Amino acid sequence: MDSTIMDYNLNIRAIFWRVEKLYSNQEIISRTYEGIKRYTYRDFSLRVRKLASFLKQKGLAGERIATIAWNTHRHLELYFAVPLLNGILHTVNVRFHPTEMDYVIKEMGDKAIFKDKDIEYKNDSITSFILDEKYDEEVEVQEPFAEFPDVDEKQGAIACFTSGTTGKPKGVIYSHRSVFIHSLSLMAKDVLGISSSDTVMTIVPMFHISGWDTPFASLMTGARLVLPGPRPKAEDIVNMIKSFGVTIAIAAPTVWIDVVHYVEKEKGDLSPLKAVVTGGAEPPLGLIKKLSEYGVKTYHAWGMTETEAIATINKSDDINRLSEQGYPIPGIETALIDVDGKELPWDGRSVGELVVRGAFVTKRYFNSPSNILHNNTWLRTGDVVKIKEDGSIKVVDRLKDLIKSGGEWISSVDLENAIMSYEKVLEAAVVGVPDEKWGERPVAFVVKKPGVEVTEEEIINYLKSLNMFAKWQLPDKIIFIDSIPKTSTGKLDKKAMREMVKKFIEKKG
Amino acid sequence: MDSTIMDYNLNIRAIFWRVEKLYSNQEIISRTYEGIKRYTYRDFSLRVRKLASFLKQKGLAGERIATIAWNTHRHLELYFAVPLLNGILHTVNVRFHPTEMDYVIKEMGDKAIFKDKDIEYKNDSITSFILDEKYDEEVEVQEPFAEFPDVDEKQGAIACFTSGTTGKPKGVIYSHRSVFIHSLSLMAKDVLGISSSDTVMTIVPMFHISGWDTPFASLMTGARLVLPGPRPKAEDIVNMIKSFGVTIAIAAPTVWIDVVHYVEKEKGDLSPLKAVVTGGAEPPLGLIKKLSEYGVKTYHAWGMTETEAIATINKSDDINRLSEQGYPIPGIETALIDVDGKELPWDGRSVGELVVRGAFVTKRYFNSPSNILHNNTWLRTGDVVKIKEDGSIKVVDRLKDLIKSGGEWISSVDLENAIMSYEKVLEAAVVGVPDEKWGERPVAFVVKKPGVEVTEEEIINYLKSLNMFAKWQLPDKIIFIDSIPKTSTGKLDKKAMREMVKKFIEKKG
Repeated sequence: MDSTIMDYNLNIRAIFWRVEKLYSNQEIISRTYEGIKRYTYRDFSLRVRKLASFLKQKGLAGERIATIAWNTHRHLELYFAVPLLNGILHTVNVRFHPTEMDYVIKEMGDKAIFKDKDIEYKNDSITSFILDEKYDEEVEVQEPFAEFPDVDEKQGAIACFTSGTTGKPKGVIYSHRSVFIHSLSLMAKDVLGISSSDTVMTIVPMFHISGWDTPFASLMTGARLVLPGPRPKAEDIVNMIKSFGVTIAIAAPTVWIDVVHYVEKEKGDLSPLKAVVTGGAEPPLGLIKKLSEYGVKTYHAWGMTETEAIATINKSDDINRLSEQGYPIPGIETALIDVDGKELPWDGRSVGELVVRGAFVTKRYFNSPSNILHNNTWLRTGDVVKIKEDGSIKVVDRLKDLIKSGGEWISSVDLENAIMSYEKVLEAAVVGVPDEKWGERPVAFVVKKPGVEVTEEEIINYLKSLNMFAKWQLPDKIIFIDSIPKTSTGKLDKKAMREMVKKFIEKKG
Repeated sequence: MDSTIMDYNLNIRAIFWRVEKLYSNQEIISRTYEGIKRYTYRDFSLRVRKLASFLKQKGLAGERIATIAWNTHRHLELYFAVPLLNGILHTVNVRFHPTEMDYVIKEMGDKAIFKDKDIEYKNDSITSFILDEKYDEEVEVQEPFAEFPDVDEKQGAIACFTSGTTGKPKGVIYSHRSVFIHSLSLMAKDVLGISSSDTVMTIVPMFHISGWDTPFASLMTGARLVLPGPRPKAEDIVNMIKSFGVTIAIAAPTVWIDVVHYVEKEKGDLSPLKAVVTGGAEPPLGLIKKLSEYGVKTYHAWGMTETEAIATINKSDDINRLSEQGYPIPGIETALIDVDGKELPWDGRSVGELVVRGAFVTKRYFNSPSNILHNNTWLRTGDVVKIKEDGSIKVVDRLKDLIKSGGEWISSVDLENAIMSYEKVLEAAVVGVPDEKWGERPVAFVVKKPGVEVTEEEIINYLKSLNMFAKWQLPDKIIFIDSIPKTSTGKLDKKAMREMVKKFIEKKG
């Protein structure tokens, strides 16, 4: 039987209503090439309405619009104005190669590009706008757009492309509804617990997975939002935390490694900061401990482009449990399957592939009719995990990153974490390289901490001393490098590393 | 353009998935006539599956089921089992007169009644089950129901009838989706912020507005849930807070007045309690101050049956602002209209009727085809309010409770609060009574604190000393009584009070 509840679209308009009507004196702070921009939600909302008129005037209302932009207030205005007009905001990864940019913009059929001025990209076939002071003025003179349509919640709002290390980028389109529900879920006290008394800094790029929806969640509940702008360095981040009293900041583990390193070197402090949200890769225990010494909690989040960023969260007070990926947030369901797709028990021992479904999970890729779901229900994550009886998930490895040696599995993630727990090591990555006898063998890449010396033998001895690995699980080789190759979204670029090993061996041979 | 996000029903099944899979060792504690029942989410979930099989066996799967029951674990099992089978749980107000119960059960077309044993009600035309130990055993022997259907989120889940003081009760039916979204909204840190480290006690009746959805929100995030059972007295509530470490408890202001009074008298304490959620009527400032002295914060919520309980929240740290009803929670929009339906500004001065819309707002009453919305958009709340520029709402009065004297309005709520701020007064209510010369004049009902003496003159002088009221706004008469008449849901029964004034005058005359 039908309920008596009204139809109400969970859309960007419903989020914007809150921003414009409820928290008008709250602030948005944005670092740009022209300096720090500070304005209120009231002024921001007015700008969004003017930008909507600007888009309409240019014939771009309801169209697909590409942005190639950093985390700034200008980007944030587009986050609202484009979907409010029932268009789709396509956030292009600024770290893509120009040919990749060409590809995704063509795939998506974008009608215009809004680009930060420092990003090298030319596309003569599409109208382009540079996000600079001239653009600001052109928007400023517009009449505010009066009334936004009540867009159906299942319509697309924000598109982005995965940055896989193999194959072409694949597009996903988040809906108005998925942005609303995911953002609301982030506000839950047991998830991020963002509140109106927080100052939130979104360091994860707004050009990918809508900054994990944290700009939306922040504005929905009246938090002060800090956007760190183009190419923020550790120094910039630390300064902004201090200057603006940032209480919660969201960034990949490598960013926090740099930040902690900077704070140690410069005898700085992180005093306003209460929590960091991190994910995309497992935060090393050493990092979590260091942050804890500075009075900062670590929230370990897990997710992927296909789950609209955060799907599970671990906020354990027990630092030693924080390597787990934690519990599915409201709106997400999880299961564990074996290679035949059969469900495995949650006993903390059975190892299988994590599959997920829920209110912000993708069922297919853009421009591809085929449903990618297992049993027409579950998205395969490609992550190999164990699940404890209480639902807490531990990623053991990526399916494609497991190393198969002599018919047995070696976890590259376990090896990486073990190496990174060594005091002289800044960062480490492990890849499997082809081996005639064993099929595959592990090779480690290591970045030393500045100013210290460390040898291959020393690290191998350290690994042995941990009593965590069988002898055949230890790396055959340790290669010292200045920095670990990463993909455009900051993930370990194992493909590039395998190439490096090949060259290394060829050179030696 | 469509998104690539999967279809996923926000339904009770999605909530139950969390309860059964994620927090299996968390506890539910229930006070019953047979004593305290404690069991885990795991055992609870198993019982829900057995109860579903029991319902199926009795031919009640997918049907409308009436409960006439207190806040117990048995009621909670029905909260899940009935909607999980795509039936509708109709919670009947235990304080209804038997003829009202007959009426609502017939209106809803219920196929069975599940009733606590102490409630006097007989209905020979419908199968009835008594929620006792025999019933427990009948459910216990069932095989657990294997797989619940994926009910469309717009289907009805829970029905309840308003308890207006005029006219027949009117039914509303909450949907699976509205229960999910409202519960998720309650989990937001800026709303109730219920978390897995909380012990929540739902004292507001589960027989009305699904206990403000706080049982669902608690179970959705793994909080310990305490249900205070049949007719809990202040003593029971205080004991349970102590014994089970309740951190957050939800009840009407009158309950908290009794609790604070009991604690004062018995030199008790409320030490585990961090916050009380209260609403339905405005909590008096004196109560808020007393709770604060005990280290307990007051969260002032506003809502109505037609908004699925909580629609706005005030968690201000400034005690003097806590009389405001606060900000709309995520999923709710508000506006202010005048008598002609024209929008009024949010300037903290303009007085008009509050209208609301959103994801858990009713558009019509059960068995009535007519949409009750203003402009086919807004639900008229009947509350006369001012709205501040930042969106915070202050209820001035109920439309029907404003007193019109000599063409000017007198706010009965303002008078009630002023009288209750007098140290010798426990409770007060003000009604308008017909007056030949002025149209209407205010008359106050006052309950003295035990053991003190107070006169009409003393109260009038106190009101004058506040400098808040013009002379013509002061009550013509103060009537001392032992308790204020209330409706079955604890609201001031002004209809009954007007009758009392009439009799009082007749007696005098």
